[in-house]
Amino acid sequence: MFYIGIDLGATSAKVGVVDEAGRILGKASCKTGIERGFEPIAADMAEACRRAARESGLEMADFAAVGVGIPGEQNRQTELVAFCNNLGWVDVPLKQRLEAALALPVYVDNDANVAALAESRFGASKDAPTSILITLGTGIGGGIVQNRRLHTGAHGVGGEIGHMVIAMNGEECNCGHRGCWEKYASATALIRMGREIMAKKPGCALAARLGGDPDRVDAKAVLDLAKEGDADCMGIFRDYVHYLCIGMGNLVNLYDPDMFVLGGGVAHAGAFLLDAVRAQLGKYVYCPSLSFARVELARLGNDAGIIGAAMLGRED
Amino acid sequence: MFYIGIDLGATSAKVGVVDEAGRILGKASCKTGIERGFEPIAADMAEACRRAARESGLEMADFAAVGVGIPGEQNRQTELVAFCNNLGWVDVPLKQRLEAALALPVYVDNDANVAALAESRFGASKDAPTSILITLGTGIGGGIVQNRRLHTGAHGVGGEIGHMVIAMNGEECNCGHRGCWEKYASATALIRMGREIMAKKPGCALAARLGGDPDRVDAKAVLDLAKEGDADCMGIFRDYVHYLCIGMGNLVNLYDPDMFVLGGGVAHAGAFLLDAVRAQLGKYVYCPSLSFARVELARLGNDAGIIGAAMLGRED
Repeated sequence: MFYIGIDLGATSAKVGVVDEAGRILGKASCKTGIERGFEPIAADMAEACRRAARESGLEMADFAAVGVGIPGEQNRQTELVAFCNNLGWVDVPLKQRLEAALALPVYVDNDANVAALAESRFGASKDAPTSILITLGTGIGGGIVQNRRLHTGAHGVGGEIGHMVIAMNGEECNCGHRGCWEKYASATALIRMGREIMAKKPGCALAARLGGDPDRVDAKAVLDLAKEGDADCMGIFRDYVHYLCIGMGNLVNLYDPDMFVLGGGVAHAGAFLLDAVRAQLGKYVYCPSLSFARVELARLGNDAGIIGAAMLGRED
Repeated sequence: MFYIGIDLGATSAKVGVVDEAGRILGKASCKTGIERGFEPIAADMAEACRRAARESGLEMADFAAVGVGIPGEQNRQTELVAFCNNLGWVDVPLKQRLEAALALPVYVDNDANVAALAESRFGASKDAPTSILITLGTGIGGGIVQNRRLHTGAHGVGGEIGHMVIAMNGEECNCGHRGCWEKYASATALIRMGREIMAKKPGCALAARLGGDPDRVDAKAVLDLAKEGDADCMGIFRDYVHYLCIGMGNLVNLYDPDMFVLGGGVAHAGAFLLDAVRAQLGKYVYCPSLSFARVELARLGNDAGIIGAAMLGRED
């Protein structure tokens, strides 16, 4: 059988036809156009599914299921999308509209969760029964896979690792709380730290490289300079790894997975990040004398969203 | 079949004979006497098991297994007790000595884990597939039960909820880290806050009740005055519930259990604590519009250690 996976974002919905081995056989996409509201977006998503199927030389009858990774939360009780903040959706019947349009069972889950599932089935964590994907991007997303199945908790609200409070009374977060992990260990946090150093030291290497323009600071610029040995950016990087390891240490102490998989923009720093985290993590766990999770980089890149969404249907 | 459960502490080892329904049919105990070192303690524990069996009118052949809850960690790979800090044990063969002495399979796990198992089988969480016991005592212990089995993680080092860092750079903890949850939400934390108010306001109601002696401050004194409406102790209690809910909110966002069970000395405050936590917890979770864990008080009291340890053998 074949599966359709949809990676829904605020800009576009990317659709892929996926086989049992996790290979993407064909793709299609549509602009999201959030200003149009929910119904036309759902209709366009269904149309993109049909297009991707046609372009892969398949009939709709060849598919077992459709999966969607959303930048938000599905309400497991009502089976409505509870919210997608970036799309302005609250309690919308995405599953129901797609099922009606495509006559296939449709599964909806959080986008970080489905990426974790993809890495677990076909990527970095495929030999690890229990793994946690940590996506270090605008925020910190996460997905917990336990015994090869997504662990989203008793009510479907688990796995929100980016909103674990590590700094009581700390930085304000979009979620309304203070001190969430993602305020310290996301790409956005690296950018904030880069801007702070530029404001404090206008003659620093980062300012020189970016023409003194704080709007040009991105995670890559900070990480590149750290790799080159610039003392200021090395200092930022050390702080960043400290914050990252506080949260990862918490996850070891609570959940004790076989493996962490690091993904998202910051993980593009590759071995530079991986080596630093591997060297430091033992200092942050409660029982350093006992074995704890190994750390790897994600392998599926941007396709993880499509592949993992497609696998939601295969899970059942 | 019958099971023997041992609740090992720094002062004594309490042994109980437990039936399939979780009833304790007979008890025995021995002084731990930590200064004697490991071997004589293990021998006395075995002897107490035989005594408890005799006093229950049973032969050793009537037992399926022996379980031990330890104030420390069992190394799953070596099957040695990795450490029990209060007993000064490092890498001791408790399982092996008891198996040799009693000719029964012996299971060893952390004491908070086994208490969580007991509450899940026969106590407050017996209708909840996934539950987290939070014991609010000298520290914060915890045990995670998932689908009616202990979740101790891939390496057996999970469930250490008291050492989740919630306050980066915060209070120093015995574990060597800073800002662990138990530094803010244990009975010890309540005592610290009580002493602080006494030092700051020598005329406060807490000082008056305890004759101004900071050594007499315990969790009960602070909680009793808070219940009576004393403004200072109410303030401490509000802060305490805030700290408690930060950690519980993290556990919802990460693990999303069906239920929390509150145990330990602070939970003796009963409905006063329970009502406050229930009223506040929603403010600390990432998705307050969706359902999340309910909160109950532990029911098995001090027997949870014996009953849960006994059930370790029944789990297998």
